[in-house]
Amino acid sequence: MRKSFQCMLTAGFFLCLCALLAEGRRTSPQASGERTMDREAIGAVLQPQQSSWNRADVEAFLQGYWHSPELTFSGSGGVARGWDAVLARYKKNYPDRARMGQLNFSELEFRFFGPDAAVVLGKWHLLREKDELGGVFTLVWQRFPDGWKIIHDHTSAVAEKPH
Amino acid sequence: MRKSFQCMLTAGFFLCLCALLAEGRRTSPQASGERTMDREAIGAVLQPQQSSWNRADVEAFLQGYWHSPELTFSGSGGVARGWDAVLARYKKNYPDRARMGQLNFSELEFRFFGPDAAVVLGKWHLLREKDELGGVFTLVWQRFPDGWKIIHDHTSAVAEKPH
Repeated sequence: MRKSFQCMLTAGFFLCLCALLAEGRRTSPQASGERTMDREAIGAVLQPQQSSWNRADVEAFLQGYWHSPELTFSGSGGVARGWDAVLARYKKNYPDRARMGQLNFSELEFRFFGPDAAVVLGKWHLLREKDELGGVFTLVWQRFPDGWKIIHDHTSAVAEKPH
Repeated sequence: MRKSFQCMLTAGFFLCLCALLAEGRRTSPQASGERTMDREAIGAVLQPQQSSWNRADVEAFLQGYWHSPELTFSGSGGVARGWDAVLARYKKNYPDRARMGQLNFSELEFRFFGPDAAVVLGKWHLLREKDELGGVFTLVWQRFPDGWKIIHDHTSAVAEKPH
């Protein structure tokens, strides 16, 4: 009886120790440089997003966003709420290939908050036949079972120059 | 010898169990509604910030921001980097009491990422003698030993109406 109790304690001790170590690794703060796989995973959403835009496929562009009524987009029109509203906003502001132009993202900066959240800052540039424009964005990301998705986008313009 | 080993195991087991329970509470996802104290703590930074602005004290307004070269501010001028640059930007864009006007924050929305990070969306409105303007902001917050601070601010305008 005594021995089996001791065995249980030993097993319990090591189980708890393993769980603690695993938990520690999961939640310990990690420098951005150490999150290479997550940075690549987020880049692997942004890159196709840019390509989708550049072939004027807005719906494919929107695949990088959380397909939820809780998705938010803050921009020149205020706050759009929900995936459908964000899609409608893009379709209204960029109704055709000429208005969409060629999109380029640059100067990405990553900050991670725990294992499943990130904020990515960056710049966007749109080259169109008649003008070019650009600005800055702040993207809030969350990791879901099917990968990283944008759950909030704040995009604004910086300057508009005649081409 | 055997008994002391058993004592050590028992103590180790309960220590680990306590640590695990504490860790679990620290990292378990919490609905926004359950973070009342954190929401209040963030509100207790934003409220004096608004008051500081309204008595034209930009330096006091800036106390809510992380005093670090890593602080970022994305806005109509691109990305300002570091507390000093953010202060300089505010002083340049809002050089006197008339340009600062009366600031009001509204429609705050909180999202927490783990125990020490949050994103707050909201609207800002500036009432000045000659005009009024307003827009949206996305604030990224981090909890430091001395409290919650803004580590990234993306602020943009929505509409400018003559007064």
